Amino acid sequence: MTERQAVALDRDDPLAPMRERFHIPEGVIYLDGHSLGAMPKAVRDNMATAVDTEWAEHLITAWRRDGWWHLPETLGDVLGRVIGAAPGQTVVTDTTSINLHKVLWAAVDANPGRSVIVAEAGSFPADLYITQGLLAGQPDLELRLLGEGQSIDDVLDNDVAVALLNAVDYRTGALMDMAAVTAKVQQSGALVVWDLCHAGGAVPLSLDGWNVDLAVGCTYKYLNGGPGAPAFVYAAVRLHQRLRQPLSGWWAHAEPFAFEPGFRADNGIRKFLCGTQPVLSMRALQASLDLFAGVDMAAVRAKSMALAELFIAEVERRCPDLSVLSPRDPATRGSHVALVHPEGFAISQALIGRGVIGDFRAPDVMRFGMAPLYLRYADVVAAVEALAQVMDNEEWRDPRFQAPAEVT
Amino acid sequence: MTERQAVALDRDDPLAPMRERFHIPEGVIYLDGHSLGAMPKAVRDNMATAVDTEWAEHLITAWRRDGWWHLPETLGDVLGRVIGAAPGQTVVTDTTSINLHKVLWAAVDANPGRSVIVAEAGSFPADLYITQGLLAGQPDLELRLLGEGQSIDDVLDNDVAVALLNAVDYRTGALMDMAAVTAKVQQSGALVVWDLCHAGGAVPLSLDGWNVDLAVGCTYKYLNGGPGAPAFVYAAVRLHQRLRQPLSGWWAHAEPFAFEPGFRADNGIRKFLCGTQPVLSMRALQASLDLFAGVDMAAVRAKSMALAELFIAEVERRCPDLSVLSPRDPATRGSHVALVHPEGFAISQALIGRGVIGDFRAPDVMRFGMAPLYLRYADVVAAVEALAQVMDNEEWRDPRFQAPAEVT
Repeated sequence: MTERQAVALDRDDPLAPMRERFHIPEGVIYLDGHSLGAMPKAVRDNMATAVDTEWAEHLITAWRRDGWWHLPETLGDVLGRVIGAAPGQTVVTDTTSINLHKVLWAAVDANPGRSVIVAEAGSFPADLYITQGLLAGQPDLELRLLGEGQSIDDVLDNDVAVALLNAVDYRTGALMDMAAVTAKVQQSGALVVWDLCHAGGAVPLSLDGWNVDLAVGCTYKYLNGGPGAPAFVYAAVRLHQRLRQPLSGWWAHAEPFAFEPGFRADNGIRKFLCGTQPVLSMRALQASLDLFAGVDMAAVRAKSMALAELFIAEVERRCPDLSVLSPRDPATRGSHVALVHPEGFAISQALIGRGVIGDFRAPDVMRFGMAPLYLRYADVVAAVEALAQVMDNEEWRDPRFQAPAEVT
Repeated sequence: MTERQAVALDRDDPLAPMRERFHIPEGVIYLDGHSLGAMPKAVRDNMATAVDTEWAEHLITAWRRDGWWHLPETLGDVLGRVIGAAPGQTVVTDTTSINLHKVLWAAVDANPGRSVIVAEAGSFPADLYITQGLLAGQPDLELRLLGEGQSIDDVLDNDVAVALLNAVDYRTGALMDMAAVTAKVQQSGALVVWDLCHAGGAVPLSLDGWNVDLAVGCTYKYLNGGPGAPAFVYAAVRLHQRLRQPLSGWWAHAEPFAFEPGFRADNGIRKFLCGTQPVLSMRALQASLDLFAGVDMAAVRAKSMALAELFIAEVERRCPDLSVLSPRDPATRGSHVALVHPEGFAISQALIGRGVIGDFRAPDVMRFGMAPLYLRYADVVAAVEALAQVMDNEEWRDPRFQAPAEVT
C-alpha cells in the first residue's frame, strides 16, 4: 500500500477524530497500546482537579463530596458499558492478580465437591502464579492445564470447579469464542472466569449476553487508564448471593462505617472490594473511561481488524524473514499481531530506535498492538517501512540493540 | 493559653517552616491528618511530571527509564528511614488490608503446629475482617481476641502463631510499648505483626531496633501520601527465607520477565508484591516521602505531644461537657486526641461548619489529629475556641448537623 492510499483510508476513518483526544509524542508510532495505552488529554484536567481541588482543598470531605468512596462502582458501571455488563456487576479495584485470587477462591468456594481449576498452559504466567498461590493455601485443589492445541472439551469433567481462560492470548493474540466456551464450561457444571486484559477496550464484549459468570481485567492497556491503573472484577448479579471472597476488607462490608467487629459482606458487587483504593490513579482512569462512553465498539473492532490486516499484508510483502504467529483469520484474533524471529529482542530495540514502539516477549515474540482510537493507517504503513529497513539493513546487529532490557 | 502565647510557641517551633511545604485551605484548621494528610505542594510537580512526561511522552519505556518498576522498593527504602527499617525490608504496595492478609498468612505458614491468631477486640475493624477472611479459607485456625484491659500475657501460649496488634489504637489513640510487647510475643514462640496505620509519620519507630517481625500500614494519614495512597509491608530480613505469601503475582517472581510457567518467589522483600502497581498514586506518595527524608522524627514526636497537651488542657478548661478518652500520659498516646460526647457526630459537624475539621467514629468518639508538620499551636488554641463556642451555644443542635454522614 502506498502512503497515499493509507492517507485516504485515514480520511474516511470514522474514528479518526478520536486521535486528537490523546497525547501522542512527536516522531513516535506507538504500537504498544496492548501494554500501556496512550494518555487521553482529559487526564490532565482530571488530575489537576483531583489534586488541587479535591485533595488539597476539600481534604477529608472529598470522600463524600467528590464521590471518592463510590469510585469503584461508579467507574465499574461506566466500564460495564464497554464490556457488556449492566450496572451493579462491575467494580474497579486493586490489581488483576489480586482480583483473580478473589474470583478463583469464590468460584471454588461456590462449587463444593469439585476441586480442579482449569487454566491454559500458555496463559499469561501471572494467572498461573496466582492459581499456584491459591493451591499453596488449599492443597486439596488441583491445577489442570489446557495445553496448546487442546479443546476445552478435553479438560472438562465433573471435578472441574472453575475454568480460568484468557479472552485474548497475550502472546499470539488468539481470540477465544467466549460465548461458546462459556456455555461448554457451564454445561460441565463449572464456573467460568475470563481474564479480559487483552480484550477490554479492543474487542466488543457482551458478558451479560454470553452469560459469563466472572471476569477480571486490567484497565491500562486498550482502556488507556494509565500506568498500573486499578483493575476490575465482573460478577454476574445472578451469582452475588452465592459468592464469598477471602480478602474481606472493610470496603466490602455491608455497613463499613458502623465499625462492627464482625464482617458482613455487602450484598452486591462491592463484596469484591477490600481496602482503600488509590484515588488519584482512579481519577486518571475515569478520564479514559468517560472517553469510551462515546465510542462505538463495533467501529473499534472493524478498524482494529483492518489495521492488523494491513500490517500483516505489508509485513509479508516487505519482511520475508519474519513469520506471523497470530491467527490469520481476523475473526479469531484480538487487537495485536505477533511476529516471530530469533533476534526479536534486538529487532524491537532497533525499531524503537526508529521511533516505532512495539514490545517483545521471550523468547522470540514481537508484539504490535493496533489501538484504533489513536492509530492511523498511515502509521501502520510507516511502521512496516521502518521494520523493513531494520531487516534489510540488519540494523538489529548493532550492539546497542542486543542488551536485554529488564522491562519493555 | 492566650493567642499571643501560642504565636510565641509557633515562632520558636523548629518545625514551623515545614507548614509552607503543604497546601492548607484558607480558613481551615485541619485536625484530620490522622485520616487523610494534607497535600504536600511538591505533589503538583511530581504528578505533572508523571503524567505529562513519563506517561504521555515516555509511554511504555517509562517503566525502566523513570524507575516505575522499582517504585515499590524505592519508596519502601525511603519509608524505611521513617519507620526505622534498614533498606531491603519495606515495600510500598497494594492496600493495608491486602498486605495484612499476606503477612498473616505468611506468619501462620511459617509457624506450623500453631493455629491461633491473636488480635485486639478493639482493633480497627478491618483488621478483624481480614483475619475472619483468612479463617474462612483455613477453618483450622482460631481467632483469639485480646480484650480491653487485658494484657498481652493473658492471651499468649504455645498455640499462638501470630499476634496482630495496632501500634496506636484508632479510637483512643493509645500507643503500645512496641518493644516490650514484641519481645513478649516472640518469647511465646509467636511472630508479631504490627499495624502502623496511626503511627507511621507521627511516632518515632525503630522496627529493626525492636526486632519486629512483620508490619503493615497505610501512607495516607500522617505520611501525607494522598487519598488511598498505596500501603506498605515490612518484613525483617532475617525472616525472608522462611516466609511465603499466597497472593503470588508476577511482581513477586524472582524473574518476572522470564515468563516462566511456574512461580518462583523473589528472595527479598519483593516477594510481598503481587500485581502491577498504581504508578500515579505512587508518584504522589513519593513527593511526600521525599519530604520526610529531611524530617527529624524526634522533633515531630515532641511537637505532637506538646500540641496534644495544649489541646487537652484547653478542652478541659473550656469544655466541661466533653471527656477525654485518650490516655493522659503523653508517652502512651499516639498523635490524635479522642473526646467523647453522646452528640459527638453533630458536634464534629458543627465544628466543620466553623472550618475546624476533625472526625467522628461511632458511637460517640470525636478524633482530633495533631499533625506536627503543618499544624500550629495557634491553630490548636483557635480550634478549641471554636469547640467551646459550639458547646456553649449548643450549635450542634442545628438540624443540619444531625444527619449522619456516610463518610467522614
